[in-house]
Amino acid sequence: MVKTIAVMGSTGSIGRQTLDVVKANPEKVKIAALAAHTNDELLEQQIIAFNPDIAAVYDVEAAKRLRNRYRGKTEILSGEEGLRTVATYSNIDTVVAAVSGYAGLRSTLAAVEHKKDIALANKETLVAAGGLFIEAVKRNGVSLLPVDSEHSAIFQSLNGERHEEIKRLLITASGGPFRGQKRSDLEKVSMEQCLKHPKWSMGKKITVDSATLANKGLEVIEAHWLFGIDYDKIEVVVHPQSIVHSLVEFQDGSVIAQMGLTDMKLPIQYALSFPIRWDNAFGQLDLVKASPLTFEQPDVETFPLLQLAVECGKNGGTAPCAFNAANEEAVYAFLAGRIKFLDIPAIVFSTLDRHNNITNPTIDDIEYIDTESRNNARLAIKKLN
Amino acid sequence: MVKTIAVMGSTGSIGRQTLDVVKANPEKVKIAALAAHTNDELLEQQIIAFNPDIAAVYDVEAAKRLRNRYRGKTEILSGEEGLRTVATYSNIDTVVAAVSGYAGLRSTLAAVEHKKDIALANKETLVAAGGLFIEAVKRNGVSLLPVDSEHSAIFQSLNGERHEEIKRLLITASGGPFRGQKRSDLEKVSMEQCLKHPKWSMGKKITVDSATLANKGLEVIEAHWLFGIDYDKIEVVVHPQSIVHSLVEFQDGSVIAQMGLTDMKLPIQYALSFPIRWDNAFGQLDLVKASPLTFEQPDVETFPLLQLAVECGKNGGTAPCAFNAANEEAVYAFLAGRIKFLDIPAIVFSTLDRHNNITNPTIDDIEYIDTESRNNARLAIKKLN
Repeated sequence: MVKTIAVMGSTGSIGRQTLDVVKANPEKVKIAALAAHTNDELLEQQIIAFNPDIAAVYDVEAAKRLRNRYRGKTEILSGEEGLRTVATYSNIDTVVAAVSGYAGLRSTLAAVEHKKDIALANKETLVAAGGLFIEAVKRNGVSLLPVDSEHSAIFQSLNGERHEEIKRLLITASGGPFRGQKRSDLEKVSMEQCLKHPKWSMGKKITVDSATLANKGLEVIEAHWLFGIDYDKIEVVVHPQSIVHSLVEFQDGSVIAQMGLTDMKLPIQYALSFPIRWDNAFGQLDLVKASPLTFEQPDVETFPLLQLAVECGKNGGTAPCAFNAANEEAVYAFLAGRIKFLDIPAIVFSTLDRHNNITNPTIDDIEYIDTESRNNARLAIKKLN
Repeated sequence: MVKTIAVMGSTGSIGRQTLDVVKANPEKVKIAALAAHTNDELLEQQIIAFNPDIAAVYDVEAAKRLRNRYRGKTEILSGEEGLRTVATYSNIDTVVAAVSGYAGLRSTLAAVEHKKDIALANKETLVAAGGLFIEAVKRNGVSLLPVDSEHSAIFQSLNGERHEEIKRLLITASGGPFRGQKRSDLEKVSMEQCLKHPKWSMGKKITVDSATLANKGLEVIEAHWLFGIDYDKIEVVVHPQSIVHSLVEFQDGSVIAQMGLTDMKLPIQYALSFPIRWDNAFGQLDLVKASPLTFEQPDVETFPLLQLAVECGKNGGTAPCAFNAANEEAVYAFLAGRIKFLDIPAIVFSTLDRHNNITNPTIDDIEYIDTESRNNARLAIKKLN
């Protein structure tokens, strides 16, 4: 049976790699809808290659440009409403939620409410609105399949196992480009140094988050919601080779791990093929070449956002939403060259100092805190300029 | 529900560790029958501790000694018939087959024919009579659970996975005490050096087999039969830290591994608890302490028995039985101080040169080849003395 999917964020890193997987498996998966933020030129090429029924561009100007050029059969939509139409399109089984950042939340939630299975690459959905989102997933009886390599590894390690027998989740972290450096070394690092991730080819936002270890903190919160595991049973271990993608320890002391090459197409394909595994031409792990595999404790003093994110997760309520909003604003300011690398944690900490937690938040509470935290972060950024 | 078991080979290394697991889980598993080879003193202690209904000693003199001393309720049996009675005892669900060497074959087969589930530590059963044994397991509809740590790791890595999606089994080998040495270094190694296994605490026979890598060859044959996988899809990789107990690569490039401390109680307990996992006090794997994990190709020139065993497996018929018989005789002669370390492979090679393979052997063919190969090996050993 062919699986019919929508790809939200198709011009981003995960989106493009998703299309590579689809291209390699034309008899197994078909694209019926695409959505992008602003890149109308790449979206047009994707439309021509995959012939979806509909395609949306969030940016209204970009959508206009595309409509003026494009003469094919695909219907071109735009704005928030366009994204929503793609995410809830009746012809699809599964939505690949690969929009970067908080912007992916509303459309992913809409997809769940329309009983679409979700291949989730947008971790901010779970970070900002984990409780709400998981409740919607359960209520609608849809499948939630992780696309992040770490969470896919945990998901695969749990195949055939019992949830109540889990002792710990061990999430691996490459440690990012600044592993082994101290705070004083990081005062003058450039954007270019920051964007050179040693192992994974990813989008810019997540690459900066890897350098600050904020990404690993977000992943701990993501794992908490995805697998329903208490924070005190989730640990982070630095594994610079990124071969062991994550591990699960069970109560008998046995540890199951998933390993592989550092190719995001592997977890993307698994999210589409689950519960089976498709053949592919991704290349084969050579353990002898990959050797040695090393593991070390994360340096929580030099990279304080990891621990702060986990604390926000433990506090619950809107704390993770505030963390995420402040972090997004700080990272975008850094990418725009407006602040320095070490300003990122400073801004997140100062924003959280001003945050009043709302327990059991509604979606409106989350929207409110997201906006408020962004405003506070922007004010803090302005002060630095 | 309490599982009731018989332990065949209860005074050996695996047998004793099985009793440790039972002792720690009195509400989950109960011992109804024990069998030992000659160690009547230890068996008596075990009888007193576990109160089985019956206990057998293979050695008739040792059984006599035990009967003369022992005044409890457990019935004491002896000889081949005693072992058979234990293995087929009506009150048990599962037989832990932990007799060392070919001697375990008949009783394990009898247990299968009496519809007992098997927790298999006796790899020689599968090596010498794999085709026959697996046919009996299927015909009787019993479960066959591996106790070897490598096979338990593969078995656990296959939880919830599809057999037809397996690309490769990767069996890890510690490399033994002589890893990194060349043939010329091995000319004068002592029995003491040979028995110092760097990682695992095991019986003497298997420890010597680890030093020659014959054990890993036997394990490849065992994996072939246990998991129904072609030999060209089974690889051996040397992993000196023995933390990754083995791995399975699937057709999508994903590799699932089972890891843990080097404690045989872990796979023993899993074979008893499957499909669930019991809590325990075995200790917890610390990846940071275990780091680095290294992997290297086996040195097949210095340790030729690995490749020879695999070739015998590929040839099929009685070739693996002949290999096993010659290897057992050579190892026992080495342990008796009668031959040198490098004589072990020489004797196995010369015995196989004289072996005429019987394809699709009956149990009588296997008995015949086992006896013939032992005689040829003994003649070769004599020539060296």
